[in-house]
Amino acid sequence: MRLSETLHLLRPARPPAPYGAQTLARCYSVEDVARQARRRLPLGSRAYLDGGGEGEYTLRRNRAAFDDLEFLPRQPGDVSSVDTSTTVLGERVPLPFALSPVGGPRMFHHEGELAVARAARRAGIPYGISTLATTSVEDVAAQTDTPLWFQLYIWGDRAQSKDALARAKAAGYRALLVSIDTTVRSKREREKRAGLELPDPDLPVTTLVEGALHPGWAWHFLTSPTISFPNIGPPDQRSLREMPAMFDGTVSWADLDWIRELWDGPILAKGVLRPEEAIEAAERGLDGVVVSNHGGRQLDHVPATIDVLPRIVDAAGDRLEVLIDSGFRRGSDIAAALALGARAVLIGRAHLYGLAAAGEAGVRHCIDILAQELRMTMQLCGARTVADLNPGLIRRRNPA
Amino acid sequence: MRLSETLHLLRPARPPAPYGAQTLARCYSVEDVARQARRRLPLGSRAYLDGGGEGEYTLRRNRAAFDDLEFLPRQPGDVSSVDTSTTVLGERVPLPFALSPVGGPRMFHHEGELAVARAARRAGIPYGISTLATTSVEDVAAQTDTPLWFQLYIWGDRAQSKDALARAKAAGYRALLVSIDTTVRSKREREKRAGLELPDPDLPVTTLVEGALHPGWAWHFLTSPTISFPNIGPPDQRSLREMPAMFDGTVSWADLDWIRELWDGPILAKGVLRPEEAIEAAERGLDGVVVSNHGGRQLDHVPATIDVLPRIVDAAGDRLEVLIDSGFRRGSDIAAALALGARAVLIGRAHLYGLAAAGEAGVRHCIDILAQELRMTMQLCGARTVADLNPGLIRRRNPA
Amino acid sequence: MRLSETLHLLRPARPPAPYGAQTLARCYSVEDVARQARRRLPLGSRAYLDGGGEGEYTLRRNRAAFDDLEFLPRQPGDVSSVDTSTTVLGERVPLPFALSPVGGPRMFHHEGELAVARAARRAGIPYGISTLATTSVEDVAAQTDTPLWFQLYIWGDRAQSKDALARAKAAGYRALLVSIDTTVRSKREREKRAGLELPDPDLPVTTLVEGALHPGWAWHFLTSPTISFPNIGPPDQRSLREMPAMFDGTVSWADLDWIRELWDGPILAKGVLRPEEAIEAAERGLDGVVVSNHGGRQLDHVPATIDVLPRIVDAAGDRLEVLIDSGFRRGSDIAAALALGARAVLIGRAHLYGLAAAGEAGVRHCIDILAQELRMTMQLCGARTVADLNPGLIRRRNPA
Amino acid sequence: MRLSETLHLLRPARPPAPYGAQTLARCYSVEDVARQARRRLPLGSRAYLDGGGEGEYTLRRNRAAFDDLEFLPRQPGDVSSVDTSTTVLGERVPLPFALSPVGGPRMFHHEGELAVARAARRAGIPYGISTLATTSVEDVAAQTDTPLWFQLYIWGDRAQSKDALARAKAAGYRALLVSIDTTVRSKREREKRAGLELPDPDLPVTTLVEGALHPGWAWHFLTSPTISFPNIGPPDQRSLREMPAMFDGTVSWADLDWIRELWDGPILAKGVLRPEEAIEAAERGLDGVVVSNHGGRQLDHVPATIDVLPRIVDAAGDRLEVLIDSGFRRGSDIAAALALGARAVLIGRAHLYGLAAAGEAGVRHCIDILAQELRMTMQLCGARTVADLNPGLIRRRNPA
Repeated sequence: MRLSETLHLLRPARPPAPYGAQTLARCYSVEDVARQARRRLPLGSRAYLDGGGEGEYTLRRNRAAFDDLEFLPRQPGDVSSVDTSTTVLGERVPLPFALSPVGGPRMFHHEGELAVARAARRAGIPYGISTLATTSVEDVAAQTDTPLWFQLYIWGDRAQSKDALARAKAAGYRALLVSIDTTVRSKREREKRAGLELPDPDLPVTTLVEGALHPGWAWHFLTSPTISFPNIGPPDQRSLREMPAMFDGTVSWADLDWIRELWDGPILAKGVLRPEEAIEAAERGLDGVVVSNHGGRQLDHVPATIDVLPRIVDAAGDRLEVLIDSGFRRGSDIAAALALGARAVLIGRAHLYGLAAAGEAGVRHCIDILAQELRMTMQLCGARTVADLNPGLIRRRNPA
Repeated sequence: MRLSETLHLLRPARPPAPYGAQTLARCYSVEDVARQARRRLPLGSRAYLDGGGEGEYTLRRNRAAFDDLEFLPRQPGDVSSVDTSTTVLGERVPLPFALSPVGGPRMFHHEGELAVARAARRAGIPYGISTLATTSVEDVAAQTDTPLWFQLYIWGDRAQSKDALARAKAAGYRALLVSIDTTVRSKREREKRAGLELPDPDLPVTTLVEGALHPGWAWHFLTSPTISFPNIGPPDQRSLREMPAMFDGTVSWADLDWIRELWDGPILAKGVLRPEEAIEAAERGLDGVVVSNHGGRQLDHVPATIDVLPRIVDAAGDRLEVLIDSGFRRGSDIAAALALGARAVLIGRAHLYGLAAAGEAGVRHCIDILAQELRMTMQLCGARTVADLNPGLIRRRNPA
Repeated sequence: MRLSETLHLLRPARPPAPYGAQTLARCYSVEDVARQARRRLPLGSRAYLDGGGEGEYTLRRNRAAFDDLEFLPRQPGDVSSVDTSTTVLGERVPLPFALSPVGGPRMFHHEGELAVARAARRAGIPYGISTLATTSVEDVAAQTDTPLWFQLYIWGDRAQSKDALARAKAAGYRALLVSIDTTVRSKREREKRAGLELPDPDLPVTTLVEGALHPGWAWHFLTSPTISFPNIGPPDQRSLREMPAMFDGTVSWADLDWIRELWDGPILAKGVLRPEEAIEAAERGLDGVVVSNHGGRQLDHVPATIDVLPRIVDAAGDRLEVLIDSGFRRGSDIAAALALGARAVLIGRAHLYGLAAAGEAGVRHCIDILAQELRMTMQLCGARTVADLNPGLIRRRNPA
Repeated sequence: MRLSETLHLLRPARPPAPYGAQTLARCYSVEDVARQARRRLPLGSRAYLDGGGEGEYTLRRNRAAFDDLEFLPRQPGDVSSVDTSTTVLGERVPLPFALSPVGGPRMFHHEGELAVARAARRAGIPYGISTLATTSVEDVAAQTDTPLWFQLYIWGDRAQSKDALARAKAAGYRALLVSIDTTVRSKREREKRAGLELPDPDLPVTTLVEGALHPGWAWHFLTSPTISFPNIGPPDQRSLREMPAMFDGTVSWADLDWIRELWDGPILAKGVLRPEEAIEAAERGLDGVVVSNHGGRQLDHVPATIDVLPRIVDAAGDRLEVLIDSGFRRGSDIAAALALGARAVLIGRAHLYGLAAAGEAGVRHCIDILAQELRMTMQLCGARTVADLNPGLIRRRNPA
C-alpha cells in the first residue's frame, strides 16, 4: 500500500466543520490571519506560503523597506467622505488594489481560485489568474464579473503560451501580465527543506504525519480532485514536477512583441526593477509595468520594490501605468506606494493567507482589513481621494 | 447571572491596603514605575497604557529617535544654582513640562484625574484635561490652582464641542489644545486583542480572570462609580463604545477659526508634524502648536516628534509657542527637546504609569524623577537655565 | 545582632586559597577576565563595575563606536621589531596606555590600589590615583616608581582640594588630571537597583546572601580594614554615603586657573568632549586633555569618545597632549585611538576586571593582553612605531 | 597511559560507514553543508573551521557586507545558454572560482587535500595548496590536471621558502599566491578557548570526550598517519606548535622582488586591502592581487573585501588580475564580486565545510551548489556570460 493510500485511512467519516470563520473575527491584521493560516496548513504548503528565494534577503527586505518610510500627514481637512476608488487599465475600481495571480491556490484551500474570485467579486476588484493556477480560466470567469487579468509565463514551448492566451481572451479576460522575472525558476530552499513536491502520488512520511496533524486540510485535500494546472495548454495537464523544465530561459523582449500582436487588450510587463525596463516596455507598446520582485520568491538580493518605485515612475511618465507588488500587508503600505506614484497594488501572499485560513471568507476578511486600513490612513493623512496621495506625504528616514 | 455580577462575588470584604507606596521607593526611573503599573493592571488597561496604532512603528520610533541624539555638554561652569523654570503660554512655571491630557485615567486608578491634579498642584505644573476625561472639568478645577488646559476633540456634533468649551471657560481653564490628528480614530490592534471595550456591562471571561489576578485594581473598579465621560456635553454621558462614531472626519482648519472666536485664551493646535501646519496655525491667529504623534496611538508610521521638531521650530519663529509630546520618559529627553527649540514638553504615558502604580503618590514620583533627571542633565550640560539649552548642545548621530 | 555581624558568622576559619591565578591562564581577552570578575563579586560591586549612568546609552555606545571603524593595514613591511613606546607628559613609557584613576578599588579586591600599583610598576606604565581612591596617595607611591598621576575632584570645600594637591605633590605625583565632567554626580540606576551603599554598617539582607555566595570576596572584605577614602583631606575620612554632597556643582574654569597656580607639574582637564573645551584648556595654560565620558558613568547620551576625538585633536594642535578613555577593551581599540591622534589611552574598567578577578596577577594579565593585542595590531597594520599609527589607517564605515 | 592512548581504546573494531553521502542530498546550500560539518567534527576542528581573529568583527562583517548590495537584474533576455567560463591567469576555466589554499585540511577529513584535489579535477577548476597544507605538493599534483597554485608564507628562514618554491615548480604548479597579511600570526581566541593545539601527543581530556562524541572523525584520525606539514621544507616537518615562531614579521615588498626572480609563472600578492598595494604590486611586476582579509582570520576589524574591491579594481586597471576571497558562501556572492570587477573568487571555508561533511563528495557538492547558484543568478540577472556581469547590475543600499 502506498503512503498516499495510508493517508486515506486517516480520513474522518464526516467533513470537518467549515473552518476559520469563528477565528477570523479575532484577526485584526493580515498578520493575524497569516498566523491562522499557518495553523491550518501542513509543512509543505506553509513553506510555499511563507518562503522566498535562496537566503530570503529580499523576502525580509520587502517588509523592512516600509520602515524606512514615514508619513507626514496633512491635517486637518474634512475627510468624512474619503473616496478610495481609482481607474486601473481603463476601468473604474472601488479600491486601488487587485488580487495578484499566484501559483497553486488549491494547495492552501480546496476551493482555490473559485473562493478567491467570489471574494474579488464582492469587493469589486480585479483578480489575476496565473498560468500556474489550479483552476481553469473558464471556471474562474464564471464566478465573477470584476475585471480578470491573465498572468502569462512564456514557456519554452511557445505554442502552449499562444493557446493559453487564446483561452483567456475567449473567457473574457481584460488584461495580460507577462512575467519577465522568471526566465528560469529560482531556488526555493525553504520549500526543498519541507520536501514540497506536489502533486506526488508517493508521499513522503512527513506528509503523512503533517496530514494527520492538520485533519481539516487533509480531509479536503483527499476528497477533492487532484491538484492540476489546467491553464497549461492541452492536451496534457502537466504536474508541478515538470514545471522547472518549462522555464527554459529563452524569454526575451522579442517575445513581448509577439504577444503584443496576439493580444489586443492591455499588456503589462511584470517583474520590472529598473527604469530602463519601463522605457523598453513603453517603446514596445505595452500599457504598463508591475514593479515586482515576485514577492521575494525569484532572484534573491534584489531591492524591495518600494525602494525602486520612484525612479521607475519617473521613467514611465504618462506612457505607462505603474503597478506594484511584493511585501504589501497593510493598507498603509498601499497608501505609501500610491503616494510614490503607483497606480495600484497587487496583493498576493496577503490574500493567500486569507484563503488558507478560511476560504472565501478569509480572502474577504483580508480585503476588508486592507480597505479599512487604507481608508483610515487616507483620512489621517488628510487625503480625500487617491489623487491626494502624493510624494509630499512621504519622508524617507534612511537613504534609499 | 451576568459575568460582571460574578466579578462582584470575588470582591474581598475589605479594601486592599493603599497600594504602591512601598514599591515606589525602589523605582528609580519612569520605566521602573511602568513595570509596577503593568503588575497592577488587568490586560485591557495594560494594552491601552502601553499600546499604539496598528503595527506600532511610531510607538517604537518615539523611543528610538532619542538614541539618534547625543549631548555635547559645555563644561565646567558653576551649576550649583540651576533654574528649571520657564514661561509657558504667558505663565511662569517651575518646570518646563506639563501633564498631558489623556483619555480614561480612571481605567488606571479609581481616583483618576483627581489624583493627577493634586500631583500637578504639588509640583506647580500645568495639567491638561481631555475631552475624554473620566472626571468633569469642574471637579478637576476644584483640586488645583496650577494652570489647567482643556484638550478639545471636535465632534461631529459641533454643539457638543461648543458646550464643552463653555464649561471649561467657566471652570477657569486657561488654554485650549485642539487636536488635529484625530479626525477619525486609529486602529488599536493591541487593545482589540486584549478585548478592551470599556465600560461594558457584559464583561468577557478574560476580564473576570484578569480581575481575579489583580484584586487591588478590581476592588476599586467595582466599588467606584462606573467610568463615564462627563465632559462630553449634556444631556447624555456617552460610553466609550459610541466614541468612534463621534470622530466623523469633518474637522478642518475652518473649525479652528470658529473656535478662535469662541475662546479668548491661548489656543494650540495639537498633533502638528509639518512646518506648513505651524505656519497655518500662526496665520489663523493661534498661539502655539503641540508637535505630537499622539504618543504613537494615531496614524502609524509617522515620524518621531523629536525628528521633525527643528523644522517646525524654524517655521514657527516667534509667532507661536512650540510644545511637544510623544515618547518622553527621561529628564534628558525633555532637555533635548528644549535644546532643539521646544518651549515645554507634555508628559502623557509617563504620568499614567505613576497613576496606575500608586495613584497620586505615583504621579508625584514620576514628576520628581523627571525633574531630578532634567536638573542633573542641565547641570552636567553646563546649563544654568532653560535658556542655556540650545541646539549647539545636540549632536545628531544619524541623519534625521 | 546587626546583619554585618551575622555575616561574620559565615566567615570561614581559614583564608580561601589565593584566587584567580588558575583561571587567568584560560582568559584570552579582557572580556574573558571580566567574566571571571563577575563570578567573584557580590551584586553591589558587580553593578558598579559594569554599570553606567541612567539608561546606559553611552556605556553601550562606547563599545559599539569601535565597530564603526575599520583598519586599512599597510602591508607588508618588516615589523619584526615593533616599538610600542611613546612619550606621555614628557616621560618615556614602554606602552601608550596608562591605568586610569577609578574610585573604590578595594570594593573589588582587598589589596586595591596596592595591587594595581605593583602591576603598573612591572609594566612600567603610569597609574592614576583617584580622589576617591581607597588607599592613600602616600601608600600607593611606596609601591611603584612608574609615573603616578593624581586625579582631582574639586569639592565644594576648596580647602579639601588644596590639601589633597599638597599631599600628592609631597608624595611625588607627576601630573594632575582635573575632572570637569563631575560637577554633580550622575544617576547610577544599576547601582541603586543593586542596593549599593558602601560602606554601610547596617547591611541589607541581599548583601548577606551575596556574601555567602561569594565567600572568597567576603572573607577578605571582613578581614580587611573598613573601606575608606583616605585622600579626602583630614581630619575626617568621609564615607561614600556623604559623597554626592561633596559634588556641589560649583566647579568652573576659574578653578582650573587656581589649580594652575597651586600645581607646577602637568595638568590635564579630564572629561573633555568638545573642541572648544580643548581650546579653553590650552588658553588657560593646561598641558593636555583627557577625552572622556567617564566610562559612560556620568551624563548619559553623550557621544563615544572615539567619535569626537578627531575634532578635538584638530583643536588641540600641538599645544596640548590629547589622552582618551572610555570603553577601551582591546589593543586594537588603543591602536585606533592612537591612529586618530590620541597620545595615550587610559585603561579604567579593563584593569578593574583584572583586579577583581585575581588581584595584582589579574591586572598584570589584562595589561599583558592589551600590550600583546596592540603589538600584534601594529604589526599586522605595518606600523613599526606608535608614530606610524595615523589617520590613513582608519576607514569609517558609518558617518560619525 | 597517556590520554592519546586511551582514545585508541575507544576505537571501534571496524571503520564507520563512509559518512556524509546520505545527508548531502538534503543539503541545499553551503550553510546546510556547514551544519553537517559541525556535527561531524570535534570541538577543536570546529573552532578552526568557523572561527576568526580576536573578536571576529571582520568574520561577521564578511557576511553582512553582502546584505548592503542588491542586484538590479536586466530582464528579459535569452539566457538559456549561459556560459560561466572565464580566463584566470591565462588559463580558460569552466567556472569563475577556484578552491582556496587553506591550512590543515586533514584536521577536517582524513583524506584532506587529496579529496579536495579530486573534486577540483572533476569540476575543472584551479586549486591552491597552502604552505601549511597537510599533504605534499607532489602528492596533490598526482591527483589532478586542473591548474594548481601554490600559496607561499614567507618564513623567517628564507631558505625554507626558496625550497618550497623549487618543489612547487618541479611539481608543475602554475601560479604563486604570496601572502602579505600574515607577517605575524593573529590571535585566534575561539581556537584557544577550544584548546586547539594540534598535533599534540598529550591530548587534553576535552579531546578525549570530543573524540568519543564524534566516533567517525576519531576513527579516521586515529588510523591515519599523524597530521604533518610536508611543504615546510626539509629536513624537518615542523608541528603546528612551532608555527607562530616561523612568522617572524620580516616580510616586506623586497621579498616579493626576490620571489619574482625565483618564479617565472604568475605571482599574486594575497591579502591586499588598499589600492596602494595593488599599485605597488603592479610596479614590482606581479601579475595579480587577491583582495583578502584571510577569511576574517588575521587582523580583526579590517573591512569586508567586497567593500574595498571597487577601488582596488580601479587602481589595478588592466595591469593586474584582481581575485578576491573572504566570506563567499553563495553563487550570488560570486556574481556580485565579478560584477564589481573581480576576475575570480577563491573559495576557502565553503569547500572545507564540504570536506568535513563528506570528503570528496562533500567538496563536489559545495562546488555544485555554488555553480548552480551562480548560473541561476546570471540567468535571472540577464547575464549570458561572465563579461555581462558589470557594476551596473549592483545597487549599494548602504554607503560603503
